[in-house]
Amino acid sequence: MNLKSNPIPWQDRPAGSNSVMWRYSENPIIDRYAIPSSNSIFNSAVVPFGEGYAGVFRCDNKSVQMNIFAGFSKDGLNWDIEHDPIQFNPGNTDMIASDYKYDPRVTFIEDRYWITWCNGYHGPTIGIGYTFDFKEFFQCENAFLPFNRNGVLFPKKINGKYAMLSRPSDNGHTPFGDIYISYSPDMKYWGEHRCVMKVSPFEQSAWQCTKIGAGPVPILTEEGWLLFYHGVINTCNGFRYSVGAAILDEEQPEKVKFRTQPYLLAPSEIYELTGDVPNVLFPCAALHSIEEDKLALYYGAADTVTALAYGKISEILTFIKDNSL
Amino acid sequence: MNLKSNPIPWQDRPAGSNSVMWRYSENPIIDRYAIPSSNSIFNSAVVPFGEGYAGVFRCDNKSVQMNIFAGFSKDGLNWDIEHDPIQFNPGNTDMIASDYKYDPRVTFIEDRYWITWCNGYHGPTIGIGYTFDFKEFFQCENAFLPFNRNGVLFPKKINGKYAMLSRPSDNGHTPFGDIYISYSPDMKYWGEHRCVMKVSPFEQSAWQCTKIGAGPVPILTEEGWLLFYHGVINTCNGFRYSVGAAILDEEQPEKVKFRTQPYLLAPSEIYELTGDVPNVLFPCAALHSIEEDKLALYYGAADTVTALAYGKISEILTFIKDNSL
Amino acid sequence: MNLKSNPIPWQDRPAGSNSVMWRYSENPIIDRYAIPSSNSIFNSAVVPFGEGYAGVFRCDNKSVQMNIFAGFSKDGLNWDIEHDPIQFNPGNTDMIASDYKYDPRVTFIEDRYWITWCNGYHGPTIGIGYTFDFKEFFQCENAFLPFNRNGVLFPKKINGKYAMLSRPSDNGHTPFGDIYISYSPDMKYWGEHRCVMKVSPFEQSAWQCTKIGAGPVPILTEEGWLLFYHGVINTCNGFRYSVGAAILDEEQPEKVKFRTQPYLLAPSEIYELTGDVPNVLFPCAALHSIEEDKLALYYGAADTVTALAYGKISEILTFIKDNSL
Amino acid sequence: MNLKSNPIPWQDRPAGSNSVMWRYSENPIIDRYAIPSSNSIFNSAVVPFGEGYAGVFRCDNKSVQMNIFAGFSKDGLNWDIEHDPIQFNPGNTDMIASDYKYDPRVTFIEDRYWITWCNGYHGPTIGIGYTFDFKEFFQCENAFLPFNRNGVLFPKKINGKYAMLSRPSDNGHTPFGDIYISYSPDMKYWGEHRCVMKVSPFEQSAWQCTKIGAGPVPILTEEGWLLFYHGVINTCNGFRYSVGAAILDEEQPEKVKFRTQPYLLAPSEIYELTGDVPNVLFPCAALHSIEEDKLALYYGAADTVTALAYGKISEILTFIKDNSL
Amino acid sequence: MNLKSNPIPWQDRPAGSNSVMWRYSENPIIDRYAIPSSNSIFNSAVVPFGEGYAGVFRCDNKSVQMNIFAGFSKDGLNWDIEHDPIQFNPGNTDMIASDYKYDPRVTFIEDRYWITWCNGYHGPTIGIGYTFDFKEFFQCENAFLPFNRNGVLFPKKINGKYAMLSRPSDNGHTPFGDIYISYSPDMKYWGEHRCVMKVSPFEQSAWQCTKIGAGPVPILTEEGWLLFYHGVINTCNGFRYSVGAAILDEEQPEKVKFRTQPYLLAPSEIYELTGDVPNVLFPCAALHSIEEDKLALYYGAADTVTALAYGKISEILTFIKDNSL
Amino acid sequence: MNLKSNPIPWQDRPAGSNSVMWRYSENPIIDRYAIPSSNSIFNSAVVPFGEGYAGVFRCDNKSVQMNIFAGFSKDGLNWDIEHDPIQFNPGNTDMIASDYKYDPRVTFIEDRYWITWCNGYHGPTIGIGYTFDFKEFFQCENAFLPFNRNGVLFPKKINGKYAMLSRPSDNGHTPFGDIYISYSPDMKYWGEHRCVMKVSPFEQSAWQCTKIGAGPVPILTEEGWLLFYHGVINTCNGFRYSVGAAILDEEQPEKVKFRTQPYLLAPSEIYELTGDVPNVLFPCAALHSIEEDKLALYYGAADTVTALAYGKISEILTFIKDNSL
Repeated sequence: MNLKSNPIPWQDRPAGSNSVMWRYSENPIIDRYAIPSSNSIFNSAVVPFGEGYAGVFRCDNKSVQMNIFAGFSKDGLNWDIEHDPIQFNPGNTDMIASDYKYDPRVTFIEDRYWITWCNGYHGPTIGIGYTFDFKEFFQCENAFLPFNRNGVLFPKKINGKYAMLSRPSDNGHTPFGDIYISYSPDMKYWGEHRCVMKVSPFEQSAWQCTKIGAGPVPILTEEGWLLFYHGVINTCNGFRYSVGAAILDEEQPEKVKFRTQPYLLAPSEIYELTGDVPNVLFPCAALHSIEEDKLALYYGAADTVTALAYGKISEILTFIKDNSL
Repeated sequence: MNLKSNPIPWQDRPAGSNSVMWRYSENPIIDRYAIPSSNSIFNSAVVPFGEGYAGVFRCDNKSVQMNIFAGFSKDGLNWDIEHDPIQFNPGNTDMIASDYKYDPRVTFIEDRYWITWCNGYHGPTIGIGYTFDFKEFFQCENAFLPFNRNGVLFPKKINGKYAMLSRPSDNGHTPFGDIYISYSPDMKYWGEHRCVMKVSPFEQSAWQCTKIGAGPVPILTEEGWLLFYHGVINTCNGFRYSVGAAILDEEQPEKVKFRTQPYLLAPSEIYELTGDVPNVLFPCAALHSIEEDKLALYYGAADTVTALAYGKISEILTFIKDNSL
Repeated sequence: MNLKSNPIPWQDRPAGSNSVMWRYSENPIIDRYAIPSSNSIFNSAVVPFGEGYAGVFRCDNKSVQMNIFAGFSKDGLNWDIEHDPIQFNPGNTDMIASDYKYDPRVTFIEDRYWITWCNGYHGPTIGIGYTFDFKEFFQCENAFLPFNRNGVLFPKKINGKYAMLSRPSDNGHTPFGDIYISYSPDMKYWGEHRCVMKVSPFEQSAWQCTKIGAGPVPILTEEGWLLFYHGVINTCNGFRYSVGAAILDEEQPEKVKFRTQPYLLAPSEIYELTGDVPNVLFPCAALHSIEEDKLALYYGAADTVTALAYGKISEILTFIKDNSL
Repeated sequence: MNLKSNPIPWQDRPAGSNSVMWRYSENPIIDRYAIPSSNSIFNSAVVPFGEGYAGVFRCDNKSVQMNIFAGFSKDGLNWDIEHDPIQFNPGNTDMIASDYKYDPRVTFIEDRYWITWCNGYHGPTIGIGYTFDFKEFFQCENAFLPFNRNGVLFPKKINGKYAMLSRPSDNGHTPFGDIYISYSPDMKYWGEHRCVMKVSPFEQSAWQCTKIGAGPVPILTEEGWLLFYHGVINTCNGFRYSVGAAILDEEQPEKVKFRTQPYLLAPSEIYELTGDVPNVLFPCAALHSIEEDKLALYYGAADTVTALAYGKISEILTFIKDNSL
Repeated sequence: MNLKSNPIPWQDRPAGSNSVMWRYSENPIIDRYAIPSSNSIFNSAVVPFGEGYAGVFRCDNKSVQMNIFAGFSKDGLNWDIEHDPIQFNPGNTDMIASDYKYDPRVTFIEDRYWITWCNGYHGPTIGIGYTFDFKEFFQCENAFLPFNRNGVLFPKKINGKYAMLSRPSDNGHTPFGDIYISYSPDMKYWGEHRCVMKVSPFEQSAWQCTKIGAGPVPILTEEGWLLFYHGVINTCNGFRYSVGAAILDEEQPEKVKFRTQPYLLAPSEIYELTGDVPNVLFPCAALHSIEEDKLALYYGAADTVTALAYGKISEILTFIKDNSL
Repeated sequence: MNLKSNPIPWQDRPAGSNSVMWRYSENPIIDRYAIPSSNSIFNSAVVPFGEGYAGVFRCDNKSVQMNIFAGFSKDGLNWDIEHDPIQFNPGNTDMIASDYKYDPRVTFIEDRYWITWCNGYHGPTIGIGYTFDFKEFFQCENAFLPFNRNGVLFPKKINGKYAMLSRPSDNGHTPFGDIYISYSPDMKYWGEHRCVMKVSPFEQSAWQCTKIGAGPVPILTEEGWLLFYHGVINTCNGFRYSVGAAILDEEQPEKVKFRTQPYLLAPSEIYELTGDVPNVLFPCAALHSIEEDKLALYYGAADTVTALAYGKISEILTFIKDNSL
């Protein structure tokens, strides 16, 4: 995940603001109708690729079928998204049935880009695939039995094994959900399942009291793994999704060192408050530069469009430690 | 349904758009407070009448009581709506109790204008009435037992019988609903109930996977009956209503020849995304001219205001056939 | 419905009892496994036929598929039930799809025996059929759109039309339901839908506060139509079905003259308290002799077996009038 | 409650409007981020104090913890809100546990300012406190057992006893709720519980058919107590909160003399239609001047910001009487 | 509560049993049809009275209306229950509306017998009444706002005030409920509400993990107040009610000294497993003799009949202490 | 799984019966109070061991805590169950937290007895353990993330891998559930998840239309793997559990060759119809002798006691093939 070629998207903190994270002034960066077939383009993943960036995008079409599409960008802001969904070839197995695909994450490990997503196989579970070039894609065994969502790989092996966060739940609108970790020696068989973080008590941090799930691929820092996650509160008028962050132990990421009691970002702009699913702010990817102390967080807004927020990594880490639950 | 006198409302497709249907640039055409008592004016029906147009309008008052009102317009855009609800006289029966009336449709058959609506009789069912002049109105027997909504007559008899589409369901917020057809020799007794269209599987067309119901009175074309209908998806933050269309067999309208997999219109404008019930786009009437190849679709937005969308009939038919489920 | 040939089943009131109705001492009269395929035989209908009795029986098989079977008896107590379900030929229509059939009622009108049942056509609705001989059966149009159950014909035309009671509700476990009446000139088209009886307020008569539905075919008496019906209370451990009775006006049966506040029979015997659905006492048929002042009520017990209760018609009528809601 | 010093906030009815109440043109008056920790500042209470005004404000912080804060203003429009929540000392009891505090009301009785709020004690119930100076605060016994909300004191004793309105309900999202009154000789023990107002039938006034609760402290007028209250309708997309008003008997406030069938204000502005909980308009306080015939109603909008509406008391009273349910 | 005259009901522990409590071999002691109007007689209260015993009995009639009836017995086993429900005269207030009455408790304090029950006043709350002779009865103010059940008075004042346990909950089938205590100086105004005991975690004691409520009037022992209570588990087939016991501090009964982890009695006999509400074992009263070390516990079985269980007080106290949660 | 030493329990088919399976006449074989602490002993597993049999038993204690206990028997009918639950030592991992254990299965593979059960780890999932002697027990990694139940191992490796059936679902009363298979090279990491069998359509086989789960360890026959499973129907009064059977392909057990449309056994005896959870017949183990053509099926009855049913393997296989869905 080399950031030499192109700088990551960036915009300084607005004058007068003292928020630890702030929105990009030109949000949303991807419109719901950005490709001909799309009804909405939102929970999407990006990584450095070549001299620019590549990404895997959730585009629901106008039949409201959910699928994932490849896309490319020079600056991380202006994106060319393919008009046809990704076609997978068999990876480590025969082809798995897939009724739908959504909410992808992408990360580079060793020699290839691994993609995880919510895969429709008799209900939602975690699909796994890989690509070397974002042209040819290969699909592997699902990681788990249904019902699961928000499967997020760590960007390197831990103790010699692949590691994945996920949020097991039910087959409906998931009124509950905590973050677990599982390990695999081979990306095919998974085990050593451990609970990482649970929802917080309503009295302590209500924005994350209904369900929580991992967001972007964790970022390794001096403090440990920096994990952005979504938290949900069930108001009398529906679910409201906000963003928080945690620091996980580098060697044993099932150990949570710190975790924000306040949220970092919550729905407040009109493109977050209205859309197909109002009041959703859902992070799926981040670009970062440790050297420059910059982070660009990609998130879906109102399950409709894609937006961007910025922050300084050092400040975010300090904030998490100073405001830990 | 003669369109000689006045042209139907129209506006060309916006430059740069390639949507099969497009919104009127001055939407909404009827404000929620258009008459003194109203809280909202939305799911409403219009027909050519005299040199202009007449209509039956759902106006909920500020007690949020639901009733239907007559209205008149020269151009189909600017409407004078009566300040008092329609009073009915007995038609083919003694007067039926009616706790509330909403979501009217109007069509001309043979010698008179028939009105159907959702009638509160121990719960929602289909009320039937008629008028010759939109001044005097006559109420007939309810078509069905409760619980039913979205009763829509065909604009002429089929095989010598009146024909009506409807959506039987329950007495609450109706988490399910399919479209049926029933026949009557006399507008009093109904039978020969057949299922026409069911919701689609989530994987194939999610916007119409929770419930569907007929919209405007079907339009006879060379391909068969052109039926616009609403489809609903149940998101984690509530129901979202969109619009699709189907082509039914002319002689046996219980046979669906084609039906859109993608929606034609879905909530995306601020007057559709916010209001008393956000994310509702609900069609109840259409004006059309086969000769001019024009169609003007009236729809309720967010259960609050009335809006208009346009399309060319030939293009819509082609779109349905090319994108059939 | 001539009772000359054979006497109806009877047993005198037990010594010491002062109940207006009492159970047959040899209950249940039909065991759940009475035919080889059956899992349960319960909500069933009987009529005088020839020198004895014929009936239509709900037998759920061991796949728990619901169907109706013909049966014959000399004394109304010992029954020979066919081992195969009734096969229908087309009556007044092409054959209607029927996913399942249950809870039949039978009555003789003019020249034939009419059968109604809950017919699975895109959910439960009211199926209609007839037979002259209980050998050949003919199926007609469904009476109504879904969702409906407990369709019960009056045993003669009223004001020249067929009349049917029913209980419209939803497509699940029906947590609500009232009794309506509809009329038909021809057993094909139905209209003039009127509400007959609603559930009672909890404080006044809780056993019938959740849903009510017609039981056996109404019996014409000097006081009007005697209608037995089931009433349901929703306890914290499920629905409990009991039996009450009403007297409806002879000419205008939508007018309820009297209706029992207390129940007549409620689950209390072990074969009513335990079984596939505990605490269900569900009446579907009655034999009666006005001359002898005798009534034999057939009911399903715990959705598992068939049982019998007795009462004197004159005493039942007096009880209804003296204990009316 | 002396209004000599400073005039209450006011703005004349907009030209062309004939609404009995109208919004302040500079709404919202308090932004969601008005203090550093806040996520939202909405359901809040104000009273005349010194030469200006004091208030108790519900500020949810960015952990979405609910608490109440003191604030001061010269004009009732521009507010300085403390950055730390109110700390209570023991009043008429040892300190009561309080998991959270929200939706305060404030009123002056005899010698001090009494505050009531929804207090988290094993679920929501009614907390009571007082202050003489809005610097030192004292907490008393909870008025009731859980589960209760919207406890509102009358501004003087009635028949020698303190009187409080409240809305008992459950421990969740309260799908039901009516207004009751209770009395106390000593602000410690409460009894003589009477039902004041229930929700209205759907057919008569649907905006208040799901639950209702008292808003600001009642205002004594020549007609009796003027009570603003919130009413809720459960749409298919969630709860919608509007405002109505009632006139209660002066001596026996459990007697409702009049009550608005139409609402006075309902969500229609963008800051009411969007926010943390869309479509909420929730009144908690009012300033008034009988002499000047002015009323300024403070309300929470979308559970996010604080807004203001105006009306003439005489016109409001007339409206209530002319439009009574 | 003097036990001189007559011995309390008793039967020695069955041979071979080592249960701390055991059932009466002649259970049930009161049949569901013990009075002419009754459908069921179950949750009922008894006290020593004169030379024998008096009681207040919950009898649901055959309309399933719930009311309470007086009864008398010489031996506590054979009961004469009045055929008409108790008629109340005004006590410390005008007559309170009472839609229904159920689940009474009775205790003697100072000069009279106090009765508490679940009183239907806009939903369930705690009714209070008294009698001197079980002939004339007087009804007082309800203790609380709705929604509440299982109000149980302590048999003497504590620190100069009346004390009552109760279980606040909702207005439906109450899927949650804990035990609280409240105090009153005068049986009219109530305050100082404190939580006493909550449901236990599923993993520790599942039979009491859904809701708990006080049973008979607490018994003062050397260890403190002996409180029997019901605990409920929500199985996939409904609620199951069992019996446990706790020891509360004599002076501060909101302090729980010990509380049984295992139940004392749970449904296992056929009259507990079947009936109107299967699997309910609900204690409402106890007779005891400290001198003889005997306790007779009256309980409702399956919400249908009344039964009796025995135990030695010393053994029960030891069991509670040895098996405390 | 050698059956030399002792014959398996057996009783010939009762005279007059033509059921393919029949109950043991002395049922239940294990009473709910068979050990001092137990509230119920039901879903339990047995295997041949030494000259007799060993087993792992689900005993809920009187705190209704769920745990598993070892037991021994000479004849498979009379059992000595340990009074203390099984204590596990670490197997292939550090000790896993286990809030509760229930519904065990046991099978011998290669050199040891493997035990699977529903393990409480942040909700129900599949626990794995092993023993060589039923004295020392070792616990391994949980097979899956929550939420899962009814994990059943095949009695030998398939294609070199361990294979396990399971029923993923939610964390409540699981209103849905299908049977999946997963594979593992090492009993630690699991993958290759495939759907095996889903619930059947209501119209085809209603007893298994709500959820299904594997019962005893599959038995290898000439036809393939013989799998008994439970099927559930959701009646209006709760879940009803019955037993069916399927034949799975020997090499690819995710292929279902045959599956019973009718049930084999359904609740009908009083010990199945009443108890802690009425109407449950839940199989967890079977003893069999291919040579003698005998099978003894152990099942839990009403979640309360343990019972036994018999059948001839050849007849069962024929029945499955002749009555396949």
